[in-house]
Amino acid sequence: MNRDDGRGLKEYLAERKTVIDRALAGYLPGEESHPPILFQAARYSVMAGGKRLRPILCLAAAEAVGAPCGPILPVACAIELIHTYSLIHDDLPAMDDDDYRRGRPTSHKVFGEAIAILAGDALLTEAFRLMTRRDLMPGMPPERLLEAIGEIAEAAGFFGMVGGQVLDIRSEGEQVDLEALQGIHRRKTGAMLRVSLRAGAILAGASPEQIDSLSNYGEQIGLAFQIVDDILNVEGDPALLGKETGSDAARGKVTFPALLGVEASRLRVQALIREALYSLAFFDDRAEPLRRIARYIPERKS
Amino acid sequence: MNRDDGRGLKEYLAERKTVIDRALAGYLPGEESHPPILFQAARYSVMAGGKRLRPILCLAAAEAVGAPCGPILPVACAIELIHTYSLIHDDLPAMDDDDYRRGRPTSHKVFGEAIAILAGDALLTEAFRLMTRRDLMPGMPPERLLEAIGEIAEAAGFFGMVGGQVLDIRSEGEQVDLEALQGIHRRKTGAMLRVSLRAGAILAGASPEQIDSLSNYGEQIGLAFQIVDDILNVEGDPALLGKETGSDAARGKVTFPALLGVEASRLRVQALIREALYSLAFFDDRAEPLRRIARYIPERKS
Repeated sequence: MNRDDGRGLKEYLAERKTVIDRALAGYLPGEESHPPILFQAARYSVMAGGKRLRPILCLAAAEAVGAPCGPILPVACAIELIHTYSLIHDDLPAMDDDDYRRGRPTSHKVFGEAIAILAGDALLTEAFRLMTRRDLMPGMPPERLLEAIGEIAEAAGFFGMVGGQVLDIRSEGEQVDLEALQGIHRRKTGAMLRVSLRAGAILAGASPEQIDSLSNYGEQIGLAFQIVDDILNVEGDPALLGKETGSDAARGKVTFPALLGVEASRLRVQALIREALYSLAFFDDRAEPLRRIARYIPERKS
Repeated sequence: MNRDDGRGLKEYLAERKTVIDRALAGYLPGEESHPPILFQAARYSVMAGGKRLRPILCLAAAEAVGAPCGPILPVACAIELIHTYSLIHDDLPAMDDDDYRRGRPTSHKVFGEAIAILAGDALLTEAFRLMTRRDLMPGMPPERLLEAIGEIAEAAGFFGMVGGQVLDIRSEGEQVDLEALQGIHRRKTGAMLRVSLRAGAILAGASPEQIDSLSNYGEQIGLAFQIVDDILNVEGDPALLGKETGSDAARGKVTFPALLGVEASRLRVQALIREALYSLAFFDDRAEPLRRIARYIPERKS
């Protein structure tokens, strides 16, 4: 990626998304598998046109320490499968009860609740299977794979994403202060973003210092990303977002703009981005995609 | 275990259950973890007094090829966590809509649907984390662990348990022949029972022939176990089962007794047990627990 090319990041993201989309389509079992509805439901949600931020960060972390991306691709895609399962379950009537996601009806609206729950279960399970497929990762040391799988499971589970979702649904309509809100986001979305970078670095054979730096980068942009999400829910463009705005307020959900106001939330994002960039101070030009991604977060519209 | 002691199996199963219960209680995060309701829900279902058949089979497979059980215990317990998550999700209103399990209210009845879904998700995720904990399995070759994790994920996912559950819920009220019914059970319950033995054997460093034999044993007793389940649902003792009988018929669920009659179903079980025992022909006395478990299946009352 050329540092002086303003369009560089968009092209980089588009190219990486294409690689990841193709890999995901290849890893997932075909829709002709039995029973078809399960595989249709899985593909419906996985191939719904996500930004693929997590796998892109995973690959970029490996790249930042000078490793090739190819052998990391299955784990990067596994992280996206875990992200997808979490969206399917979060949208369920018993949880956020959302009818639309990325401008399309949610899984349970199309396939029914039972299939949506089971498609999510199968995607989570398949993510772990994919991460053990050494045939797809020739030469990858098994110790590194086990370490990455363990960290990803930790970030996705009790003390990461699932715990964060429990905190989130139980906080609706409750008094939540800034610290508690950050605690929710650190687990609900932050842990998986952070581990995307850690897993890429671990698999690339990064040093403990490099892993820590990338991890810190991930934490900062993870929280920044969430605050921008909250801001977009207040004043974003529903056409670009593919969903209604104002839903957080309607639901009595505590958000950063609700606690801090929109302007102070924006300043918070800027500070987090500075800190993320600072974490990469000892990396060379190969960390340029990560730097550009960080700088882009305050600008994003969807 | 003494071959001539009629009470040998009961004592063996009770002793193993104690070891597994204690290990599970130790592996699971404490109920004081935050947010407590998630950890309470997880423990409520895991510590609900299951028979621990899958982890017992996993340990017995390692034992049958002469390996110590200690290093296998985390994986054996992980299989039980996967089994537990599947029960929580199967009981949900959108699925089988069961109010009781093992004589106690089901998870969603106690904690609500959202927490039940999330507790299941967290247990499935934690199972994979547990299987990467090399600190609990000193000396275990990482290649073997990856192989076992991959096989367990395969048995639990699209082409195993989850796929089988989809087939099962979609078969209610439908015409299902014997072959289709066996296909449902092979995936819904058979795959996890089979992989319990395979994983134990793989981790124990068994030969490919030994893994195949134990795998075949697992397939036969898995189906036998399911047919006995169906028979107990027709004529079992609700007090011993901890749930109502007759629920399959009421729901229009196709079962072995419904297709074959109770007597022919019993003969089928006997034939499967013979085949299971035959699979162990080349094993020595260390496979005696597996042989006794097989012989006990037609006798079980709960």
